[in-house]
Amino acid sequence: MTEFDLIELIRARCPSGRRDVRLGIGDDCAILAPPAREDLLVTTDTLVEGVHFLAGSDPVALGWKALAVNLSDLAAMGAMPAWTLLSLTLPRADAAFVAGFIDGFCALAAQHEVALVGGDTTSGPLAIGVVVHGFAPAGTALRRDGAKIGDRVFVTGTVGDGLAGLRCLQAGEGATLAEAPAWARAAVTERIERPRPQLAAGRALRGLATACIDTSDGLLADLGHIARRSGVGMEIRAEALPTSSAVAALFEGEERLAIQAGGGDDYQLAFTAPTLRETEVRQALAALDCPVSCIGSVVEGESVRLLAGDGSEIVPEHRGWEHFA
Amino acid sequence: MTEFDLIELIRARCPSGRRDVRLGIGDDCAILAPPAREDLLVTTDTLVEGVHFLAGSDPVALGWKALAVNLSDLAAMGAMPAWTLLSLTLPRADAAFVAGFIDGFCALAAQHEVALVGGDTTSGPLAIGVVVHGFAPAGTALRRDGAKIGDRVFVTGTVGDGLAGLRCLQAGEGATLAEAPAWARAAVTERIERPRPQLAAGRALRGLATACIDTSDGLLADLGHIARRSGVGMEIRAEALPTSSAVAALFEGEERLAIQAGGGDDYQLAFTAPTLRETEVRQALAALDCPVSCIGSVVEGESVRLLAGDGSEIVPEHRGWEHFA
Repeated sequence: MTEFDLIELIRARCPSGRRDVRLGIGDDCAILAPPAREDLLVTTDTLVEGVHFLAGSDPVALGWKALAVNLSDLAAMGAMPAWTLLSLTLPRADAAFVAGFIDGFCALAAQHEVALVGGDTTSGPLAIGVVVHGFAPAGTALRRDGAKIGDRVFVTGTVGDGLAGLRCLQAGEGATLAEAPAWARAAVTERIERPRPQLAAGRALRGLATACIDTSDGLLADLGHIARRSGVGMEIRAEALPTSSAVAALFEGEERLAIQAGGGDDYQLAFTAPTLRETEVRQALAALDCPVSCIGSVVEGESVRLLAGDGSEIVPEHRGWEHFA
Repeated sequence: MTEFDLIELIRARCPSGRRDVRLGIGDDCAILAPPAREDLLVTTDTLVEGVHFLAGSDPVALGWKALAVNLSDLAAMGAMPAWTLLSLTLPRADAAFVAGFIDGFCALAAQHEVALVGGDTTSGPLAIGVVVHGFAPAGTALRRDGAKIGDRVFVTGTVGDGLAGLRCLQAGEGATLAEAPAWARAAVTERIERPRPQLAAGRALRGLATACIDTSDGLLADLGHIARRSGVGMEIRAEALPTSSAVAALFEGEERLAIQAGGGDDYQLAFTAPTLRETEVRQALAALDCPVSCIGSVVEGESVRLLAGDGSEIVPEHRGWEHFA
């Protein structure tokens, strides 16, 4: 199986049925027709074996996740996704791995009508690079730099499920977590293996949120990105962090709080919005069956502080994931 | 030095001065404003240490080359380049390496007014992923699938310099090539380390070439891509292959022919055009001081055959670079 056989295998498994794709996989470039009067949003994320995923991971789940983490960046900007490129670096031409990977990748792509239009395959240590393109009406994309003092801070869904899932995957069958309820382990494992990018929620927040980010590095770290780019501080109430019943069944006390405040891989949306627009925010997300919680407020300063019920500051050991730390 | 310090280092060294960049490095996505009535062309190429470049390569040259090989794909489609994303996977947060790399990358970017608008940095085995975006008036992009029987086959510049340069780099100071003329070794080393994407030539060929590709895998392999996508064969005359004086000084006879027919990393344009338009082709490229040679013709069939002066077929050992071969 050569590089070109692999490309044919990928092309055959992944339909590119969008009318705005003039030419997909198989030439020097893809030829695409952007819509008129829209901004183009582009992002890329690379996943490296042993860094972003465990060696021996299920290729189908890996394919899903590689696309999901990128679509999550489009969700954070309120974009409608359109096209993706996939760069696979593989130790060997493993057709079964690639077939499984593409099946997972394209299952999520199909849900959001995303076309795989190009990429490349090379030999080397296992790594996956994905690029996604999306659109938003000119000037409407959500950014990190618009949070205002007095805004409220919100997060969709629940937090900590991603890191809880990673702990379950790492613990295997022999450790303490293996004695935890099977349903809870399955629920958080699903959350880390098949995150669901909050694309509809992101689009619903256009014109409402003043700043938005997806929770990939860890809640406090991600809120810190908004705070730094917006030139503000934040106060986050620990007791307001939304908790899934699975995380509640698996962890308690300080350990749970550490997982929720600093755990990454959640792929929810954390955002700020004016207090006066909270009702609109709640209505817009309720229409999508997307849960949302107010977890704090934007204040003067430059730090994101986590507060206990009595107002005292809690300093968690980790605020989030960081490369080269 | 953390991931975020590295991103700041990159942002500070690489100006993004294009008016169509609404938001560059530093958010979840870049926000870009595509021009009206143009097709968007996108491509990505990954370079892995030990596969695409030697360990210990000069980071400045590596930065140049990582962008050059991608811009060369835009050149092959006749596109005007605009934006790029850079994904760096690094074993450690090596600020000197990154600074050198970005200086080389941005030196070429500045020549073509390309803005670095995003990307990511992660830890892992050294690898570089680059995405480039460009534009062409709707429907005018050059493709691989338009070669017609009776067309002539052309190539810009000279062929074999890339592989000759690699041989010189690999030979080091101790081997036979080290006794070859220093000027010739320097010339071909420059060709493999700092390839110059033929962007102006590609644009000049819009409306003239029936099919086009850049010579990255190897001349015969790349022409084979055009032949397969166009459903035609080709006959290439070995004696017509354009040879630089450096390659002529370094290699002779069968060895030279093998390097020219099968060597990759040249980043010239190989293309087909109707016989009746050869004069226009030559005039368009002469206006750019871009040398061009007619090296053969498009025929019925499905193979690309290399012919000696007496019309007999020459079967080279390698036709080009292939991963997983």
